Amino acid sequence: MPVRTQTYSIPTSGKGMYEITYLVEAALESSGQTEGVAVVFCRHTSASLVLMENADPTAKSDLESWLDRHIPEGDPNYNHNAEGADDMPAHIKTAITRSSETIPFLAGRLLLGAWQGIFLWEHRNVAHSREIVVTIIGGSDASSF
Amino acid sequence: MPVRTQTYSIPTSGKGMYEITYLVEAALESSGQTEGVAVVFCRHTSASLVLMENADPTAKSDLESWLDRHIPEGDPNYNHNAEGADDMPAHIKTAITRSSETIPFLAGRLLLGAWQGIFLWEHRNVAHSREIVVTIIGGSDASSF
Amino acid sequence: MPVRTQTYSIPTSGKGMYEITYLVEAALESSGQTEGVAVVFCRHTSASLVLMENADPTAKSDLESWLDRHIPEGDPNYNHNAEGADDMPAHIKTAITRSSETIPFLAGRLLLGAWQGIFLWEHRNVAHSREIVVTIIGGSDASSF
Repeated sequence: MPVRTQTYSIPTSGKGMYEITYLVEAALESSGQTEGVAVVFCRHTSASLVLMENADPTAKSDLESWLDRHIPEGDPNYNHNAEGADDMPAHIKTAITRSSETIPFLAGRLLLGAWQGIFLWEHRNVAHSREIVVTIIGGSDASSF
Repeated sequence: MPVRTQTYSIPTSGKGMYEITYLVEAALESSGQTEGVAVVFCRHTSASLVLMENADPTAKSDLESWLDRHIPEGDPNYNHNAEGADDMPAHIKTAITRSSETIPFLAGRLLLGAWQGIFLWEHRNVAHSREIVVTIIGGSDASSF
Repeated sequence: MPVRTQTYSIPTSGKGMYEITYLVEAALESSGQTEGVAVVFCRHTSASLVLMENADPTAKSDLESWLDRHIPEGDPNYNHNAEGADDMPAHIKTAITRSSETIPFLAGRLLLGAWQGIFLWEHRNVAHSREIVVTIIGGSDASSF
């Protein structure tokens, strides 16, 4: 059955977007599959996924800045503060971005756009190890084309 | 072919987040599949899905409060009011959270994080019955591992 | 192997939501599959996908208006301006809506809700050609039911 599951532990150094396109490409290559979808999943509620431009770094920094301004730390409306001032903003940021992302592939290559990268988005201030699951599902025999 | 589709009708008692992890686990168990992905789909545009912490209830209530403050009822900018003041906010809340969510499984278990739950998010004020589709896709033979 | 990939180039005439449900239905019909999921993917970071009500046009226009008011052009906080004032807002709008969407199907039909349509959301002001990939994955033999 053409399903292959890989789990990766990704160290982060605190808030920011970390490109993981190469990990998904590696999972796809090792699967030997040529046509199907790669499902990327983030096993956390204070970190998320997003597909974003990976050419100009200001696209990432402006995006992070927008989220910080609209979901600030220290908002007096928050009651969920036990794990720190950055915890509740991290949950909200996760809820309005993505926990799972599905990318098609054909002829053994991800069908991402020219400057479209897959990013793990760490929303907590301090370093964490984040678990990402990549499931490659599809097939490789000629009849799939 | 290892695909199994189940539809669930979930009664809600108005606005709020309702954990449905147990339904997805039940769909997975009844499928007999061991490796693949569970696709959860919400057949509505005024209710949505989100993966969120299921330990401390204040994580949910703070998230709901943030959304209510940024997407208020009675905003004079809305023209879509025929179904009530909570209708257009419900559509916007749906658009910035999720209609589909894909969760990997391995060895017959969902690979959710320790406190990561799957929630149906009712955005309308009054009680509704919401239809959720769970598609289990993958395989169960030894060669998939 | 029951996987079928189709790519569509969709001309847009600038900002707005363009319904593409018919394209996903066409991809499903041509696949001959009866049970599984349709994965829709947008190969861009300044255009996105969303499932929204397709009955009353004011639901779309109010949604677009909310996003425009919360993610305005010309925000002095943006540094990513090289491609125009509408470029960074387009990236942010993409990040908080969706790049991929997964819709289940059964008996050869998409399990969308009654007024739930699939939309390509163009976030740039001028006309573009946008590439959408539809992957139909599942099966068609009797044992899948």
